[in-house]
Amino acid sequence: MYRTHTCGELRISDVNKVVTLSGWVQRSRKMGGMTFVDLRDRYGITQLVFNDAVNAELCDAANKLGREFVIQVKGEVNERSNKNANLSTGDIEIIVSELDVLNTAATPPFTIEDNSDGGDDIRMKYRYLDLRRNAVRSNLELRHKMTIEVRSYLDKLGFLEVETPILIGSTPEGARDFVVPSRMNPGQFYALPQSPQLFKQLLMVSGFDRYFQIAKCFRDEDLRADRQPEFTQIDCEMSFVEQEDVISTFEGMAKHLFKTIRGIEITESFPRMTWHNAMKLYGSDKPDIRFGMEFVELMDVLQGKGFSVFDSAAYVGGICAEGAASYTRKQLDGLTEFVKRPQIGAKGMVYARVEADGNVKSSVDKFYTQETLQELKAAFGAKPGDLILILSGDDANKTRKQLCELRLEMGNQLGLRDKDTFACLWVIDFPLFEWDEESGRYMAMHHPFTSPKLEDVPLLDTNPGDVRANAYDMVINGVEVGGGSIRIHDSALQKKMFELLGFTEERAQEQFGFLMNAFKFGAPPHGGLAYGLDRWVSLFAGLDSIRDCIAFPKNNSGRDVMTDAPGYLEQSQLDELNLVIDIKEEK
Amino acid sequence: MYRTHTCGELRISDVNKVVTLSGWVQRSRKMGGMTFVDLRDRYGITQLVFNDAVNAELCDAANKLGREFVIQVKGEVNERSNKNANLSTGDIEIIVSELDVLNTAATPPFTIEDNSDGGDDIRMKYRYLDLRRNAVRSNLELRHKMTIEVRSYLDKLGFLEVETPILIGSTPEGARDFVVPSRMNPGQFYALPQSPQLFKQLLMVSGFDRYFQIAKCFRDEDLRADRQPEFTQIDCEMSFVEQEDVISTFEGMAKHLFKTIRGIEITESFPRMTWHNAMKLYGSDKPDIRFGMEFVELMDVLQGKGFSVFDSAAYVGGICAEGAASYTRKQLDGLTEFVKRPQIGAKGMVYARVEADGNVKSSVDKFYTQETLQELKAAFGAKPGDLILILSGDDANKTRKQLCELRLEMGNQLGLRDKDTFACLWVIDFPLFEWDEESGRYMAMHHPFTSPKLEDVPLLDTNPGDVRANAYDMVINGVEVGGGSIRIHDSALQKKMFELLGFTEERAQEQFGFLMNAFKFGAPPHGGLAYGLDRWVSLFAGLDSIRDCIAFPKNNSGRDVMTDAPGYLEQSQLDELNLVIDIKEEK
Repeated sequence: MYRTHTCGELRISDVNKVVTLSGWVQRSRKMGGMTFVDLRDRYGITQLVFNDAVNAELCDAANKLGREFVIQVKGEVNERSNKNANLSTGDIEIIVSELDVLNTAATPPFTIEDNSDGGDDIRMKYRYLDLRRNAVRSNLELRHKMTIEVRSYLDKLGFLEVETPILIGSTPEGARDFVVPSRMNPGQFYALPQSPQLFKQLLMVSGFDRYFQIAKCFRDEDLRADRQPEFTQIDCEMSFVEQEDVISTFEGMAKHLFKTIRGIEITESFPRMTWHNAMKLYGSDKPDIRFGMEFVELMDVLQGKGFSVFDSAAYVGGICAEGAASYTRKQLDGLTEFVKRPQIGAKGMVYARVEADGNVKSSVDKFYTQETLQELKAAFGAKPGDLILILSGDDANKTRKQLCELRLEMGNQLGLRDKDTFACLWVIDFPLFEWDEESGRYMAMHHPFTSPKLEDVPLLDTNPGDVRANAYDMVINGVEVGGGSIRIHDSALQKKMFELLGFTEERAQEQFGFLMNAFKFGAPPHGGLAYGLDRWVSLFAGLDSIRDCIAFPKNNSGRDVMTDAPGYLEQSQLDELNLVIDIKEEK
Repeated sequence: MYRTHTCGELRISDVNKVVTLSGWVQRSRKMGGMTFVDLRDRYGITQLVFNDAVNAELCDAANKLGREFVIQVKGEVNERSNKNANLSTGDIEIIVSELDVLNTAATPPFTIEDNSDGGDDIRMKYRYLDLRRNAVRSNLELRHKMTIEVRSYLDKLGFLEVETPILIGSTPEGARDFVVPSRMNPGQFYALPQSPQLFKQLLMVSGFDRYFQIAKCFRDEDLRADRQPEFTQIDCEMSFVEQEDVISTFEGMAKHLFKTIRGIEITESFPRMTWHNAMKLYGSDKPDIRFGMEFVELMDVLQGKGFSVFDSAAYVGGICAEGAASYTRKQLDGLTEFVKRPQIGAKGMVYARVEADGNVKSSVDKFYTQETLQELKAAFGAKPGDLILILSGDDANKTRKQLCELRLEMGNQLGLRDKDTFACLWVIDFPLFEWDEESGRYMAMHHPFTSPKLEDVPLLDTNPGDVRANAYDMVINGVEVGGGSIRIHDSALQKKMFELLGFTEERAQEQFGFLMNAFKFGAPPHGGLAYGLDRWVSLFAGLDSIRDCIAFPKNNSGRDVMTDAPGYLEQSQLDELNLVIDIKEEK
C-alpha cells in the first residue's frame, strides 16, 4: 500500500500514529542536524523530519532528495513545537523511519509555487507541471464542483442529460465548422457541432420535455482570450414553456451556483433590462452593472452652441465619474489616448470637472457658457468633485460602443470592478433581426429558430427591424454567461422567417429540412438556454482568460504546444480518406 | 402557462381540481356521445373526456384531433367509474372545458407504441418519432440515471472530473483515427481521441491523484451492433495505487450501480479468473458465467483410439449440456450447421448422449468402446440425460473459440442466459504481449504503457510471451464492460517496453515524446480503468445493440440517416482547408 493518509489529512489527534505517506518533494531545508522536507500532494503539505543523530543514513538520503522527487515515507506523527497556522496539517510533523524514492525528477523549468517564475509560453509547453500549481489546479477543482452542482440542480427538476452526436452534418450558416472526412463515405465530411441546437430541438419534438447536456462545442474561428476552438456549454431545452418559465428556471440555477460554489445567497430577482435600454445606457448588450455611470445623451444640451465637432455629430453623450475631478492633466491625456486607440476609434474626448464651488470647468470652455455647463452638470446630477467625460460621433451606435469602453476603463481605474462582487441581470427583448450592410439583407440576431414576440408578429411584414424576439441573455459583470430563446414551433411562421432571411425554399430544405420535417409531426412549444461553462468558471475563479480553467487549452494559433498538435498525417492516412493537400498560399 | 400538471401526475386526491394539461394525442375513441382522448407526455398518460351532450362544439373539435396532435386542455379532475390499474393516473379523468390545438401532426410513418410496426430503417430515419416511444426513451432515462450515479460515487471518493481535449494529435498506433484538418495550420490535422489515455496519465503526473471523465471517444473502424464511430467511456485514473486498489474501487462502483439502478444488492466479492483459465475453460477472455458448461480437454481420453479426426488434432475438447440428451437428430444437425458457419469455422461436431441407463451413445460409436465413452462421461461428471458436444482442430486457440461459440449457443437454447440475471467477474493476469504473426513481432495486448507484474520482469529478456501484465477486465454476462491496467511509471522500464515492441527510439519519441518527457519530472505510480458506458446501459436495459441506448446513432456505414450526414462540403470550405478530394477507387 502506497499510503495510509494523504498529505492534507493528519491532525493533532493523529499524534503517535504510524503512517505511510506518498507525494512530491515541495522543498527541503537543513537546520542544526535536522532535515525538514515538505511533502506535497493534491490534498496538502505535510512536514517530514529526518534527524541526523538518530539515523545518519536516512538523513543523508533525505538530503539528496531534489525538488519534485516522488517519495514514500513511513513514520510516526509527532506534535510540532513550531506550529504553522497556515497549513491544515501545521500542528504535526512526521518523524520518518523509512524513505523510498518512487521516482526521481529533473529540475522543473519553472518553480511549482503559487506564484511561479515561469512565463506563459513555458508554462503551456509544460502544462502538466503548471497543473501541479495550486493556483491552476484549484480552477479545475472549481470546474468539477460546478458541474456536479449543475447536474444536481437540473436532475432534481427532471431534466434528462442526453448526449447528442459530435459527428454531425455541416451547415454553412453561422460560424465556420471544423470538419471530419468520412472514410466510409468517400468525398463526404462530418462537421463538429457548434452547439447541439438542432438536436435539442429534435429532442423536444420527441417529447423529452426537459433536456440538458454539458456539451463540447466547436468553432473554427480566430482565437482570443475568451475563445477556444473547443469550449463547453451547459445546454438546456424545455417544452411547454414561455420566456418567463425559462428565465425563472435558469435564474434559479444561477442562484444555486452562487450559493453552493461561492457561498453567496441571492434572494431578490435579477434585474431585467431591455436590449434597447442596455444599448442606450451602457452601449453594450452585456453591461457591467457593478457600477452605475450610465450614459447621458447630451445633444439637447451641447448642440447648437457653436462647437462644430458636437454640432455635426449624430450622437453626443457622456458619463460622470464620481469623485474623479482630481484627475491630472496626464491622466486625462491618458484617457484621450485610450479612446483614440485603433481598436476603439474615437476621434477625441471632452471632459468637464465640477469644482468645489460648483462651477464647471471643461476642455471646451470657449464654446460654452457657464450656464450651459451647469445644464450639463444637471443632466448628470453631478456633484462637486465629479468628472464628466464626453464622446461624440457620426454613428450613434459606434460612439456608444466607444463610450462603453471608456466607461469600463473608468470602472477599472476607480476600482469599481471588484472580482468578488457580482452583478447579474437579464437582457431581454433583443431585436429578432439585424440588418447586414454587406449582404443587404436581414440576418437572424440569434438564429433562425428564435420566435418573435406575439404582439410584434404583425410588424414582420411592415417593419422587420422593429420586431422583438423572445430572446434573453444572462449577463454577470459584463460577461454574457448564457443566452437563449423561445423557438418557433409553428411551421408556417418558420417558413416566413426563412423567407425574411432570404433563404430560398430549396436552401432552407437542404440545410434544415430534417428539422422542418420533424416539426410536421407535432412539435410542442419549446425554448431553452445555453450557459458557457468556461466563462462561468472563469468568473467564479476571478480569471482573466478562460484558458486557466481548461486543463489542456490551445494557443491563439489553435495549437496544443505541449503535445505539438495538430501535425502532419502519414500519406496512407490521406490516401484512405481520398484527400490531397494543396496549399495555395502561405499564411 | 401551458400546464399546471404533467400527464403522469394527477391522482384521486386531485379530484375536483381545475387543471391545465399539455401533451400529445395518443389515441381517441367515441363511445355513446362521449369522446375519450388519451393525452401523453414523458411522464404518463391522462384520459380526457368530452361530452357531446354538454358541449357539442368542443366534442366536435375533439373528434377532429389526429394522432400526435399537440394540444392544451383545461378541465376538472373527475374520479373514473372505470378505473385503469395499469396507469398511474388510471383513477382519474379530466372533464375538459377548453381545448387548444397547439400544433397539428402529419400521420406518423409508424405507430408510436411500445411495440411499433416500424422497421429499423424507417425508425432510424424518423428517430425523433422513435424516441417518443417509451421503450426507447426509457433507455435514455436509464443512461441519464447511470451517469448521475457514476458521478455521485466517484465524487464522494474524491475523483475530479476533468475535460480533456477532443482536438488532439494523431497517433498511427492502435485503431484508425478520425482526423480534422486545421485551417490555421495548413496541411496539418488534429485527430479525435480514441480515448483520453495519454491525457489522463499526464493528469497523474500533474498530481491530480484521482481523475475521471465521462468521455466521448472515436474510432474510425468498421461498425457492427456493439460498435459506433463515437462512443462513451467512463474513464478513470488513480495515483499511488496497486492493482488491488483499482479493482476494489471499481468493483465498488459496479455494486453501487447494480444497487441504485437495478435494485440488486451484491455483497460478495466478484470472482476473479486468470486470463489463462478463462481461455482454457471458456475459450474467451470475456466468459459468460451465468452458466457453467466449462470446457473439458479430452486429448487423454479420446486420442489414440483410431478416430483419425481426433488423433491428428492439436486440441480435442467439449462441453456437457445438462439435460439436453433429448435433443433430436434435427436439433443436433442444427448445432453442426451452426459450428460450421464460416464465421465460426469448425469442420464438424461430435456428440454423445448419456442415456437413462448410464450408457453413452455417441456419433462416433464405431471408434470408441463403451469403456472409453464411460471415461468420457466421467471426465465431465455427466449424468443420465446429459448431452456432450465435442470439437477438435489443428489450432488449440481457434478450436477453443469455436467451442466458446457453441457453448454460448447452447446457453441460449437452454435458456441459461437470462437478461435479468447478472454474473460479474474480473479477468486478470493478461499476457503483456501477444505475438503478431503478420509483422513477426510482439504487440502490446493492451497498450505500451501497461506495466508487467514485478515478479515477471526478469522474463522480459528471456521469454516475453510469458510475462503477465497488471491488467484486468471486468466482464458481465460475457460482455467486457471495462478494463484497465497499472501503468509503467519508470522511464527505464518504459524504454525497454518500446524496444521490445520494436519501436525505434526516434519513433517512440515522435509519438509519445511528450509523455516520456513528462515522466522525467516525477511521475507517481498510477493505474486506472475505463468502463464502456454504452455497454453498461445496454446490459442494464437488456438491449441487443448499443444503438438503442444512444439518442442519435449512426448506421453501419457511419451515416446518420435522419440528418443525412456526412455530406459534401462547399468548394470554399475545401479551399480554406487547402484540401482537394481525389477519389481513386469507388467503394
